[in-house]
Amino acid sequence: MHLERATWTEIDAAETDLALLPVGSTEQHGPHAPLGTDTLNAEAVADAAAERYEGTVTVAPAIPVGIAEEHRQFTGTLWTSESTFKAYVRDIVDSLAHHGFDRIVLVNGHGGNTSALREVAGRITRCDEAYAVPFTWFDEVGEHSSRMGHGGPLETALVQHANPGAVREDRLEEAAENGSDRWGDWQGRVNLAFDSAEFTENGVVGDPREASAELGEELLDAAADALIALLKTIADRDLDRPAHR
Amino acid sequence: MHLERATWTEIDAAETDLALLPVGSTEQHGPHAPLGTDTLNAEAVADAAAERYEGTVTVAPAIPVGIAEEHRQFTGTLWTSESTFKAYVRDIVDSLAHHGFDRIVLVNGHGGNTSALREVAGRITRCDEAYAVPFTWFDEVGEHSSRMGHGGPLETALVQHANPGAVREDRLEEAAENGSDRWGDWQGRVNLAFDSAEFTENGVVGDPREASAELGEELLDAAADALIALLKTIADRDLDRPAHR
Amino acid sequence: MHLERATWTEIDAAETDLALLPVGSTEQHGPHAPLGTDTLNAEAVADAAAERYEGTVTVAPAIPVGIAEEHRQFTGTLWTSESTFKAYVRDIVDSLAHHGFDRIVLVNGHGGNTSALREVAGRITRCDEAYAVPFTWFDEVGEHSSRMGHGGPLETALVQHANPGAVREDRLEEAAENGSDRWGDWQGRVNLAFDSAEFTENGVVGDPREASAELGEELLDAAADALIALLKTIADRDLDRPAHR
Amino acid sequence: MHLERATWTEIDAAETDLALLPVGSTEQHGPHAPLGTDTLNAEAVADAAAERYEGTVTVAPAIPVGIAEEHRQFTGTLWTSESTFKAYVRDIVDSLAHHGFDRIVLVNGHGGNTSALREVAGRITRCDEAYAVPFTWFDEVGEHSSRMGHGGPLETALVQHANPGAVREDRLEEAAENGSDRWGDWQGRVNLAFDSAEFTENGVVGDPREASAELGEELLDAAADALIALLKTIADRDLDRPAHR
Amino acid sequence: MHLERATWTEIDAAETDLALLPVGSTEQHGPHAPLGTDTLNAEAVADAAAERYEGTVTVAPAIPVGIAEEHRQFTGTLWTSESTFKAYVRDIVDSLAHHGFDRIVLVNGHGGNTSALREVAGRITRCDEAYAVPFTWFDEVGEHSSRMGHGGPLETALVQHANPGAVREDRLEEAAENGSDRWGDWQGRVNLAFDSAEFTENGVVGDPREASAELGEELLDAAADALIALLKTIADRDLDRPAHR
Amino acid sequence: MHLERATWTEIDAAETDLALLPVGSTEQHGPHAPLGTDTLNAEAVADAAAERYEGTVTVAPAIPVGIAEEHRQFTGTLWTSESTFKAYVRDIVDSLAHHGFDRIVLVNGHGGNTSALREVAGRITRCDEAYAVPFTWFDEVGEHSSRMGHGGPLETALVQHANPGAVREDRLEEAAENGSDRWGDWQGRVNLAFDSAEFTENGVVGDPREASAELGEELLDAAADALIALLKTIADRDLDRPAHR
Repeated sequence: MHLERATWTEIDAAETDLALLPVGSTEQHGPHAPLGTDTLNAEAVADAAAERYEGTVTVAPAIPVGIAEEHRQFTGTLWTSESTFKAYVRDIVDSLAHHGFDRIVLVNGHGGNTSALREVAGRITRCDEAYAVPFTWFDEVGEHSSRMGHGGPLETALVQHANPGAVREDRLEEAAENGSDRWGDWQGRVNLAFDSAEFTENGVVGDPREASAELGEELLDAAADALIALLKTIADRDLDRPAHR
Repeated sequence: MHLERATWTEIDAAETDLALLPVGSTEQHGPHAPLGTDTLNAEAVADAAAERYEGTVTVAPAIPVGIAEEHRQFTGTLWTSESTFKAYVRDIVDSLAHHGFDRIVLVNGHGGNTSALREVAGRITRCDEAYAVPFTWFDEVGEHSSRMGHGGPLETALVQHANPGAVREDRLEEAAENGSDRWGDWQGRVNLAFDSAEFTENGVVGDPREASAELGEELLDAAADALIALLKTIADRDLDRPAHR
Repeated sequence: MHLERATWTEIDAAETDLALLPVGSTEQHGPHAPLGTDTLNAEAVADAAAERYEGTVTVAPAIPVGIAEEHRQFTGTLWTSESTFKAYVRDIVDSLAHHGFDRIVLVNGHGGNTSALREVAGRITRCDEAYAVPFTWFDEVGEHSSRMGHGGPLETALVQHANPGAVREDRLEEAAENGSDRWGDWQGRVNLAFDSAEFTENGVVGDPREASAELGEELLDAAADALIALLKTIADRDLDRPAHR
Repeated sequence: MHLERATWTEIDAAETDLALLPVGSTEQHGPHAPLGTDTLNAEAVADAAAERYEGTVTVAPAIPVGIAEEHRQFTGTLWTSESTFKAYVRDIVDSLAHHGFDRIVLVNGHGGNTSALREVAGRITRCDEAYAVPFTWFDEVGEHSSRMGHGGPLETALVQHANPGAVREDRLEEAAENGSDRWGDWQGRVNLAFDSAEFTENGVVGDPREASAELGEELLDAAADALIALLKTIADRDLDRPAHR
Repeated sequence: MHLERATWTEIDAAETDLALLPVGSTEQHGPHAPLGTDTLNAEAVADAAAERYEGTVTVAPAIPVGIAEEHRQFTGTLWTSESTFKAYVRDIVDSLAHHGFDRIVLVNGHGGNTSALREVAGRITRCDEAYAVPFTWFDEVGEHSSRMGHGGPLETALVQHANPGAVREDRLEEAAENGSDRWGDWQGRVNLAFDSAEFTENGVVGDPREASAELGEELLDAAADALIALLKTIADRDLDRPAHR
Repeated sequence: MHLERATWTEIDAAETDLALLPVGSTEQHGPHAPLGTDTLNAEAVADAAAERYEGTVTVAPAIPVGIAEEHRQFTGTLWTSESTFKAYVRDIVDSLAHHGFDRIVLVNGHGGNTSALREVAGRITRCDEAYAVPFTWFDEVGEHSSRMGHGGPLETALVQHANPGAVREDRLEEAAENGSDRWGDWQGRVNLAFDSAEFTENGVVGDPREASAELGEELLDAAADALIALLKTIADRDLDRPAHR
């Protein structure tokens, strides 16, 4: 049940305490994939899981701009500071909880949001009247996860499947050729780079030519299944916090 | 040119310094209109103006949650604090300006956002590398503006036209009957109420039965025309700030 | 009963939960009216209402500096940021409420403060142990309200009446001649200007030659009457917040 | 030249870079002295110095509410947080400096404001386009300073002189009898108390019966002389900050 | 060269722009390892690297309290909020840079600090006059890294080696028996727990009986070598940020 | 019982609600005394008192960086803003109190921290679940206190005694000769200087040649005795806040 399209009376009649908040980003994804890739993909996974879940789940509108300053050298990338991002997420989650939707999954489509979402979910869970956990879809696609990159095979494939026509197929070659094969500029386990422009010419990491709508469907199924399993688990979870030892 | 659907290379190739940032809200709009009414309408106006404008305009993804705590008694309403809202808007505008899109209109669909948008636009214009102004669509529809209400004829009509099927036509009667005929609880010119639940039973103000898709089309044309006129004006505007007297 | 002049024991003996907090500004009012016009006028209205009200009302000292950055090109204008202004107002209101004066009217003399006062009053009323509403005197003078301007007939007249000698009568001509006849630089319903120096040469909007002490007295009576009516209404108001629907 | 009473054109014509910002407090001063004692006294000293100084000095309106939470148990005491207080002072000082009044003395009437004023003056001086120093009048009255107390002989006397009739003379006896003879609840050099109600029954520290208008005049002269000497010194002071060693 | 023990004149005479800032935590490490484990280990690695590095490196005093709320159920654990932690780190780094030590490694001993350090290092590098990167010692010990746990073999071993006597050897058995074998409470790749008390009885994760001073020495050598390699790399690194594409 | 060296189980077994939090600074102390002087001395006093006190006292790790921007012209000086400093102290105190250590003394070694510690202790005591007071060691050494200076006889002596070898004895002559004999640049009771470089060439105020390890021992005894007396007093103190009058 999508908040954007439902009326308040319909939402009020729903019997559930589960909600999904898709969290995206507007940022470069190479010459072939749209700037909205992360938002589109987070929405696709949230929608699929909400639809297939046996029970009602409230789906909030996607947060369209996240923590993406690392892509600021590429035109069209939008970003917000980490503190503003966390405040925005927290306010939205708290208003969901105000209406009784107090078991919330933050369905994330962007690696740069991950640690901030974990932090704000902890703050919400410890301090507010809600339980929240982040779920990043590309971490939940089994072996495929290792091929993540940026604008690479996974993200590209999911857009191809869920938003047909949104990927510029005729630029996949160019995307692959001028991309990079790894995220970061490393000394040991330390990434010396803070901007993606330090290690990729056109913003791509990984080979998007490996993408296909079929792969996209497979990824969507895997991620949606994982999210459904998560919803089931938190639907029954005891939310009491542990006592002081 | 929509950021969400374009690639960074396409946006980079665009020759414009104009951008639109739709700003919506997710909040009750009575039993008949969707919670996303304000976002949908802001997007519709921004899209129409960008399409009809003679020249390129960048359109950012809509901000889906605004200042709507006043509707908190109605299920599904989401809100953020004024300070977080302004920070989120400012960060997005500043990142647009970072890429050269430094003449920005904040296309607003929600009355509760108005004064915050005015304040943040002033802050941006005085302190940052950008010029921004808010534009609230229902202020720009001529005589119709006086019938605004909430979930009333104007908002309902624009949804009917731009998002056919999104209004629950069979609940218009109920919406009108249990609604209120004025916004607020007044003593002189002072509104004593801070929550809409203080003066409307079902969240409606005004009579949505007066809405129609035809009226919606008329409203969209009027608002889009006004926005195009605004874009033309700011495209040529001298952005130097006045000197100290 | 003015806090500035009373002792704590006298205030402690007062039996009331009503308080007035005058809120002014120190900003240019043309070559003829003092920089403190807004503060002087807010104090005049608060004093008149407190004196004429049948019952005791606590009057806090006036806040002398508000949101006036828009006049920054004119020497002597002082301002604070919106966030600091709201924090300062909220702290003062909360300390009034701490002593039991928890029904508070913010008696405002400056248009630039209006939306911030509305916002902070809502925050206080929803979150703190107090009920607060803003009252802007020049909104409450009947038909006269339409002639407001800036340093125009209304403000000038009230200073003439309440603070005889404070207006430079010999500069009224000059004030009128180099002033502007409207506030703002408009495209449709959008004000393109953020600083008053963008549309007025000497800071004046409206014709202060229409002012007189007699008019000032009339305005004071009208505003004080409106404020008294407001005090009566909130003295009896049920302060419970509405329940979730 | 008082900002509140002058027009912007008069202030603009003044040739000075000196400004005084009186900083007061609204807080209990026993059963005999008004809650506005600190503001009234700061204004009296600033006024006297500005008038007697050979040269022009801009005088801003007094800040009426400061850091006085320590008196919160006594009705009518108003306070703001230290961070809000410092932000409010800084914004006002920065707007003075914006017009060229960039050598500013913060003329303080309240002990509780002292360390915050020192801190914010340092911040302004190091980071902004201004030089600011705090001046607390009762530190500058020679041997008398040791008798300060609270609502004691010094403060009471200055009110008696500068605001005749404002002290309730008939309650001096009572004030003295139920007051305390020292500020704080000490263990060695550590004050264990955070609220004045921990060590004074009626809010008084010291014996206000020792006050007189004559003493008040003497104090005013001493403080004004000290402030004038300070103005002379900072008028000529080299404002360059020292270089790194 | 340790700031704590050196004089300013000695530091001033040093010819280097490299600095290390050890970042620790005070938090439970089971019944056998001290609450200061993370600080002690960060210091040990920083000291070893600074000593062995061919060239001068400034070493700041260790930050003793970090982001450790997740251990709040265990007595003695101290923590600060993420925003305060980042502000504290940033201020210290900026003051190092103020003196010319503008290539800084944040030598971290606590997993909970990692993402905040990455974020603040990015902020510093993009906005301030410095380049900073975090280095977490236990990520840089080759294959051993996989055995990290909490109060487990790695941390225990390094304390045994660098701070002989600090580990309670007689409680290793108990530590291991009541500990947990994995960090977190997982559903797929989502950690449902926010407090360590949700999955470990005594605070331990991993088997500290595998620890030894010999292992500790090996870990210290590996981590110090990695840190030295990092110092060499950043000493020569071009600090210009990449241009907009 | 030092948190850094104890395990959580040992701290948990302690029966006390008393805690000491040493608060230092890393800042220039002339050419002869280490940058860590204030931290070392705060630790020495806290340690001595905790050891000699009849009863258990928890000792937190020292805060190593405080409010020292006034020494920024001298290499190696580190500082944090006042607001960050207070937030860091407050979080640490609150986490101590979370475990039941809710009577806390902030053992301070740096004059620049004093007023911020007083303010934050008041905030904690009024708003949080703890009672905190600051104790500055050099205020508690009887007549010696008047000779404080900076890097002068008192601080130097205490380092000599508590950290033998840490003072560069061979530079005492130079330290004294190029030092200053008073702190500040005064006009009446107003210190016109905000940076120590405005009045001391090498950072020293006072004559460190008067220092000796014997004097240091005497100072340590005096300060520790005073701190013990304070601990005894607050151990028994009624922590209820006074009621409204």
